[in-house]
Amino acid sequence: MPSLMMNADMGESFGPWVMGLDEQVMPWIDLAKEACGFHASDPHVMRRTVRLAVKKPGAPGRPSRLPGSGGFWPAVTGLLACGGGRPHALQMGALAGICAAEGTRLHYVKPRGALYNDMARAPALFEAAARAVKAFDPSLPLMTMAARDTSREQGIADKVGVTLWYEAFADRAYDKDGRLVSRRELGAVHHEAKIIVDQAVRIARGDPLTASDGSDLILSAQALCVHGDNEEFIAAVRAIREALQALDASA
Amino acid sequence: MPSLMMNADMGESFGPWVMGLDEQVMPWIDLAKEACGFHASDPHVMRRTVRLAVKKPGAPGRPSRLPGSGGFWPAVTGLLACGGGRPHALQMGALAGICAAEGTRLHYVKPRGALYNDMARAPALFEAAARAVKAFDPSLPLMTMAARDTSREQGIADKVGVTLWYEAFADRAYDKDGRLVSRRELGAVHHEAKIIVDQAVRIARGDPLTASDGSDLILSAQALCVHGDNEEFIAAVRAIREALQALDASA
Amino acid sequence: MPSLMMNADMGESFGPWVMGLDEQVMPWIDLAKEACGFHASDPHVMRRTVRLAVKKPGAPGRPSRLPGSGGFWPAVTGLLACGGGRPHALQMGALAGICAAEGTRLHYVKPRGALYNDMARAPALFEAAARAVKAFDPSLPLMTMAARDTSREQGIADKVGVTLWYEAFADRAYDKDGRLVSRRELGAVHHEAKIIVDQAVRIARGDPLTASDGSDLILSAQALCVHGDNEEFIAAVRAIREALQALDASA
Amino acid sequence: MPSLMMNADMGESFGPWVMGLDEQVMPWIDLAKEACGFHASDPHVMRRTVRLAVKKPGAPGRPSRLPGSGGFWPAVTGLLACGGGRPHALQMGALAGICAAEGTRLHYVKPRGALYNDMARAPALFEAAARAVKAFDPSLPLMTMAARDTSREQGIADKVGVTLWYEAFADRAYDKDGRLVSRRELGAVHHEAKIIVDQAVRIARGDPLTASDGSDLILSAQALCVHGDNEEFIAAVRAIREALQALDASA
Repeated sequence: MPSLMMNADMGESFGPWVMGLDEQVMPWIDLAKEACGFHASDPHVMRRTVRLAVKKPGAPGRPSRLPGSGGFWPAVTGLLACGGGRPHALQMGALAGICAAEGTRLHYVKPRGALYNDMARAPALFEAAARAVKAFDPSLPLMTMAARDTSREQGIADKVGVTLWYEAFADRAYDKDGRLVSRRELGAVHHEAKIIVDQAVRIARGDPLTASDGSDLILSAQALCVHGDNEEFIAAVRAIREALQALDASA
Repeated sequence: MPSLMMNADMGESFGPWVMGLDEQVMPWIDLAKEACGFHASDPHVMRRTVRLAVKKPGAPGRPSRLPGSGGFWPAVTGLLACGGGRPHALQMGALAGICAAEGTRLHYVKPRGALYNDMARAPALFEAAARAVKAFDPSLPLMTMAARDTSREQGIADKVGVTLWYEAFADRAYDKDGRLVSRRELGAVHHEAKIIVDQAVRIARGDPLTASDGSDLILSAQALCVHGDNEEFIAAVRAIREALQALDASA
Repeated sequence: MPSLMMNADMGESFGPWVMGLDEQVMPWIDLAKEACGFHASDPHVMRRTVRLAVKKPGAPGRPSRLPGSGGFWPAVTGLLACGGGRPHALQMGALAGICAAEGTRLHYVKPRGALYNDMARAPALFEAAARAVKAFDPSLPLMTMAARDTSREQGIADKVGVTLWYEAFADRAYDKDGRLVSRRELGAVHHEAKIIVDQAVRIARGDPLTASDGSDLILSAQALCVHGDNEEFIAAVRAIREALQALDASA
Repeated sequence: MPSLMMNADMGESFGPWVMGLDEQVMPWIDLAKEACGFHASDPHVMRRTVRLAVKKPGAPGRPSRLPGSGGFWPAVTGLLACGGGRPHALQMGALAGICAAEGTRLHYVKPRGALYNDMARAPALFEAAARAVKAFDPSLPLMTMAARDTSREQGIADKVGVTLWYEAFADRAYDKDGRLVSRRELGAVHHEAKIIVDQAVRIARGDPLTASDGSDLILSAQALCVHGDNEEFIAAVRAIREALQALDASA
């Protein structure tokens, strides 16, 4: 089983407008979820971000935690959903094409924000997303949110024939079902670095978190969502990376 | 060697704006060059046109003349070159993704108008196009214009490692070098159905055309460019198809 | 009181994609409702269509039926509603700017399809539209649908301080309230030229139509909506124009 | 004669992408040059920025230095040039429309970057810009770069019938002709606040600057270009504002 892989949103700039500190966060992560146009990114940003992702030597976060990544690091991935509420073949294909041209490949698919959230609640949407990924490339894992009980999602994925990668959050509170507490609730987002790093380490070790109702919550996850929006987030990403590497070293 | 394949531009509509009689021309052709966005087409038009291309049974133009097309018909293809003057990996990937989702695949790459014309004149551009296709998928043929002497293009393609498909035109006059006479010249475009069909048959048989300087011109071509812009063009496409099928039957 | 003015949608082409036979319909109408971008049109199409509208001499439909049009013909107008459900100042301003540059001016505002229909049903939307026009230029009439009883719309317009121009349709059936019968109903759209021309003349003379429940319906209208989508529509537009001119001549 | 007015680029954000610290710079300036779409801005950003510009009470930079601004502050303006190399009537109209809807008006036109630079070198371009502004609204001043000798520009403006506002820069070095030293030259841009403020004061008082060849240079200007890109620039803007106010008070 792989160590917990760190996953961040990337490539959301558009033309001359910059969004996200991609160059600063890229060295510390394992998985780069790249925007594919329509809601963010453009053809030049996509290529630039893929190139940033495949730059290899001497990167501080190496070696890659992604199984089978064969020496380059980090992986690139895609997302979507312009209309129709499914990972769109056009967007997966567009990113896959740029990856091919840059000597790498698409490694997984993570739907963008709204669909990512909605498909965890609506089985029909989850199945549509799984089928879209399967039709495009059956070897690609689909990323979805970890939860206390993911048997429903797993059942759909098994039926469709798609691998799931579960993703957890280090900076968000969880409710008793292991779903994210809404950002509108007080205490939904952790801000203290110590608490964030502790939650990351617990997820990586399979130790229980404390859910919002006080119950123990064990999340089984392959990936951890981190953010590169600003300098404060970058510092948290580095701290998590160091804690996870210490954990690996002690294993 | 395959019979001469008929190739037409497709999928150039955009949102509610219609361009081209795709439904009428699709049954008569072997190769559907699909627009990939940016200069024409949009995600919905792309999917609709790929679906139109993979509709199989009872289509009047069957069976496919495309070698290895394995029963479906016609093939789909794409693209062009927004900036940088190369078939763009994003666009090839986008169309390939839609093809995968619809149960077919990309079969060849034909750059859009300006690049298609320019690369026949500029070896550096030709090599860039060949390298872009090679990096994206080395199994894809690159379509380029037939001419009296294509040794320069063939040399580049051999060096890069890409297959070329040469394309000729039934409704255009050729100069002594086997290049298209400019549309600004009188007599550059044939309008009479009889002349167009005759030129198509000559190209298919390897018989000489008469170049604009009166010399004999033999064009070696795998594909013939046809058009579906209006009713008159559709009639010409049908007449060419019937003539080529009669030729095949007599072979 | 002016004669019934003929109003048609114009300028809905986009870049190389053509929509509508603008050049053919322009000579026969009094009012050219021009698209203002976002849902249709682009800067070049807008300028081209305004220029088409201000071409004066020898046009077959002259003289203009628009009161105060001072010799040029036909008037130009605008519309819109990108988000927010109101005639957007940006779009009215954009069209007004092009009109100024071409030596004419904006003469009235007709919201585009969805908003035009919705505001006839929702007083809050109607008031928002009226206030948007008033804030932009209080001298501009707002076009809205004629009906059996328009006292509600008139009350809002009086309160806001905006002039209304009521528009009727020659090719659509009306229900007992003088609202358009839905296109989903059988008989909602008239196709016979004779019926269309007869309805136009009745509206112009203030004679009653027969509503879908058999009752008499008198519509008070300053404008008549006509269409330039295809050759058949153009023929109807010419026939209506000739009938209205005969009516004027006999008055 | 008015005091030197401070002019800054505004409203260059696009959808969720932020560009420029508009809220921080707006209180300190007299003239807000607003982007009008196509190269930057969007309908919502345009409205938001106009609203920001018309917020009056208690703003630190008041009262307005713009003659005839009648109590509100600062003025808004536009710019352009999508294709054709002229202030485009569509863009001026769009911004004027939003201004009208927000209870203000357009006060001047400053072409965007490339055109602004190019028209200072090419008389034909300068005349086209002047004619475009004149056709749109002959009461609007056109902003152009101050120089040692502006008789050519002034002659064109007089012929066309357009007022010019000349703009100088506090943070740029000037050559012997009073043209900006290219950014590619060493020393082209001043970074020290003291030097920038000193240059602003000299321009305001009509005192000579030292051109790059060592000669004295007097620039006659109504406006001073300032920037709100980052915190450092904001600090410079405040320092310039304070120095100019001290100058006015001592006058």
